[in-house]
Amino acid sequence: MEQSSEKAMVSRRGLLKSVAAGGGALAAGSLGVHAMGNMENLPPNVADWSKILGEGVDARPYGTPSEHEKDVVRRHVRWLTASTESSINFTPLHDLEGIITPNGLCFERHHAGAAEVNPHDYRLMINGLVDKPLIFTLEDIKRFPRTNRIFFLECSANSGMEWRGAQLNGCQFTQGMIHCVEYTGVPLKLILEEAGLKPNAKWLMPEGGDAAGMNRSLPIHKALDDCLVAFKMNGEALRPEHGYPVRLVVPGWEGSMWVKWLRRIEVGDMPWHTREESSKYTDLMENGKSRRFTWVMDCKSVITNPSPQSPITHGKGHTVLSGLAWSGHGTIDRVDITLDGGKNWRTARIDGPSLPKALHRFYYDFEWDGSPLLMQSRAIDSSGYVQPTKNELRAVRGINSTYHNNGIQTWHVMKNGEIENVEIS
Amino acid sequence: MEQSSEKAMVSRRGLLKSVAAGGGALAAGSLGVHAMGNMENLPPNVADWSKILGEGVDARPYGTPSEHEKDVVRRHVRWLTASTESSINFTPLHDLEGIITPNGLCFERHHAGAAEVNPHDYRLMINGLVDKPLIFTLEDIKRFPRTNRIFFLECSANSGMEWRGAQLNGCQFTQGMIHCVEYTGVPLKLILEEAGLKPNAKWLMPEGGDAAGMNRSLPIHKALDDCLVAFKMNGEALRPEHGYPVRLVVPGWEGSMWVKWLRRIEVGDMPWHTREESSKYTDLMENGKSRRFTWVMDCKSVITNPSPQSPITHGKGHTVLSGLAWSGHGTIDRVDITLDGGKNWRTARIDGPSLPKALHRFYYDFEWDGSPLLMQSRAIDSSGYVQPTKNELRAVRGINSTYHNNGIQTWHVMKNGEIENVEIS
Repeated sequence: MEQSSEKAMVSRRGLLKSVAAGGGALAAGSLGVHAMGNMENLPPNVADWSKILGEGVDARPYGTPSEHEKDVVRRHVRWLTASTESSINFTPLHDLEGIITPNGLCFERHHAGAAEVNPHDYRLMINGLVDKPLIFTLEDIKRFPRTNRIFFLECSANSGMEWRGAQLNGCQFTQGMIHCVEYTGVPLKLILEEAGLKPNAKWLMPEGGDAAGMNRSLPIHKALDDCLVAFKMNGEALRPEHGYPVRLVVPGWEGSMWVKWLRRIEVGDMPWHTREESSKYTDLMENGKSRRFTWVMDCKSVITNPSPQSPITHGKGHTVLSGLAWSGHGTIDRVDITLDGGKNWRTARIDGPSLPKALHRFYYDFEWDGSPLLMQSRAIDSSGYVQPTKNELRAVRGINSTYHNNGIQTWHVMKNGEIENVEIS
Repeated sequence: MEQSSEKAMVSRRGLLKSVAAGGGALAAGSLGVHAMGNMENLPPNVADWSKILGEGVDARPYGTPSEHEKDVVRRHVRWLTASTESSINFTPLHDLEGIITPNGLCFERHHAGAAEVNPHDYRLMINGLVDKPLIFTLEDIKRFPRTNRIFFLECSANSGMEWRGAQLNGCQFTQGMIHCVEYTGVPLKLILEEAGLKPNAKWLMPEGGDAAGMNRSLPIHKALDDCLVAFKMNGEALRPEHGYPVRLVVPGWEGSMWVKWLRRIEVGDMPWHTREESSKYTDLMENGKSRRFTWVMDCKSVITNPSPQSPITHGKGHTVLSGLAWSGHGTIDRVDITLDGGKNWRTARIDGPSLPKALHRFYYDFEWDGSPLLMQSRAIDSSGYVQPTKNELRAVRGINSTYHNNGIQTWHVMKNGEIENVEIS
């Protein structure tokens, strides 16, 4: 597989002219390119770090980010939830690039806090409509054949506040209930085959080991298709907040089904209609009825940069527009960009691995003339589905729900480069 | 792209029978699968973590591993180098899975310690045989079109001690000078085009901003092919020890050319023969002459688990053999496994993304009968090159060098499951 589409990576000779022009609009020397005059072969200022020994290899057995990156963190919103244990913090999408989310920045969503599980005492039970109920230790699970897959995980409440119009002012807060990592785990199918499914086994109820006992009904066809019992993310053990030592991976489906601290899977013949799939995680319609079992996360995209937390600071000239697109139905075929609120659309460049049910990174490089912009992205997935506007969604579903808002997000770029979350009709 | 070869993921019905048999050879209840008797619908022991609230989402804005994973760290070897600033620590390959290395566990190799660079004062100079010498700020670099690629980085001294026979007892120490992450950066080609290459521009000399001023000669054809000026790894900013804020990425080529804290690129018409490509990083042959410019990291593989630091603890029965393969020339076509020191070979299952110049993960699932094993892996890359034995390498290159040992590694599994690094003739 080619890792990138080279043909789209056009030469940018002459680009820096406009960079210099942009820099000129700001404080002298703060940005822009500095054409050198009569220079020696060394940079004009030899910085301190070029004169002294740096940190040795014994300093950080487990590495940490630079102190200059201390603001690149997950953030929560105090008024959004009653407690921090049943709450959310958000991935800082505006600070990130590529498709892999580093483990320390993957958003958290708990119902009773992040359980701290001792792996030696960890057990996974399989019971119900099986030939042979089983309990596995962590070491047992690790003796099954394993597989590695890169998947996004999105909470179905991601951008849920936006149903009622533009709200939180930041890509992190509107869209940051998503991350994408490489999982290592055992196909759930192999675990179920070991226990032996009875003929009437049609549904599973995975259950979490935290105090919330989070549980959801999972249809057997999905379980036997691509679900994983995972124990690693991005190569290392799952982090406590993401289900250490074992979580369920339900590719392309809403995050609350990816049960963390997985302690039990009951096999049954009907769905359970648990709390978290009846009073919660269902989409309340205008007529007072709820859509149920809205499992798949539909195709969506967002411009991560520039965005409200990451304004344009370099003035006019060449500007990198970066964003993410994803679909629970497969890969992303195309992403379109508008800078004028939908009057004109251009095709973005998708760059990096294109994997099913994984984040895709896209770019649109443009020359900013300093006038206000209304920036939007619109993704089209491999099923042909086109990401809708928020109003198209509202026309069908009303505004009672907080779930499954995959509508187009609009950022308003002002003349001074600052950006706000807006909605256009 | 399919993320895995489903056809190779055979059903393992009956597997747990042998798991149970294996567990039976150890202390009762310590491993193995526990067929349940007359059970309620809850696991027999409801652990403490199921009864109390866990940590809230405000606890760790930047997440950290579980305290139970505190031994999963980079390690250095005190006697190997005179100081910790000009030294190495090693990636714990035996603890990892998949192809992505988490940033905190990517090995370090410095010549003057890890420089702590202030990104606001960072500059990159391009000078020499160019139409227009330039100095870029970090923000300037970020205005060029960018790309995302997953690449391995291997130090040419990886497994260098092994030229003279089996030495350090651990996969981390013999093979851990390698990692694989997703980089985000600007094609070096675009930066060079901005400065304008003169007709006689044939070589570059990238130079580091640390006190070692690490520099190497890089031929122009490679620079214009796939090199990147990178500022992100696995989505977030480069870590200080990996060149924050900017490093060179030289895909498939030896790690010392991936200059960190990149401060200058001089363009010339001949190689410089710097210290680090003459007295160091050249391969001294039997006849006293050195191979120079041995840039490409040839095809190689290693079994990461089981291995000396990760013995077989479950006794006889089903065993997961996991390993890594890579090639600076492209992708991995095939990996073969022997358990008897080369008498019989079987083809391993390559699982996960297969990307050029990136790590590949392979598996071989087998039933261990408890007898001693001599385990080896042998990779074949997309150019048709077959990973050689150490003796095949020695016959050509002698044993004076510490670089470019891509020979086959042997692990000796003893009856008790412990494993040692050995060599067989």
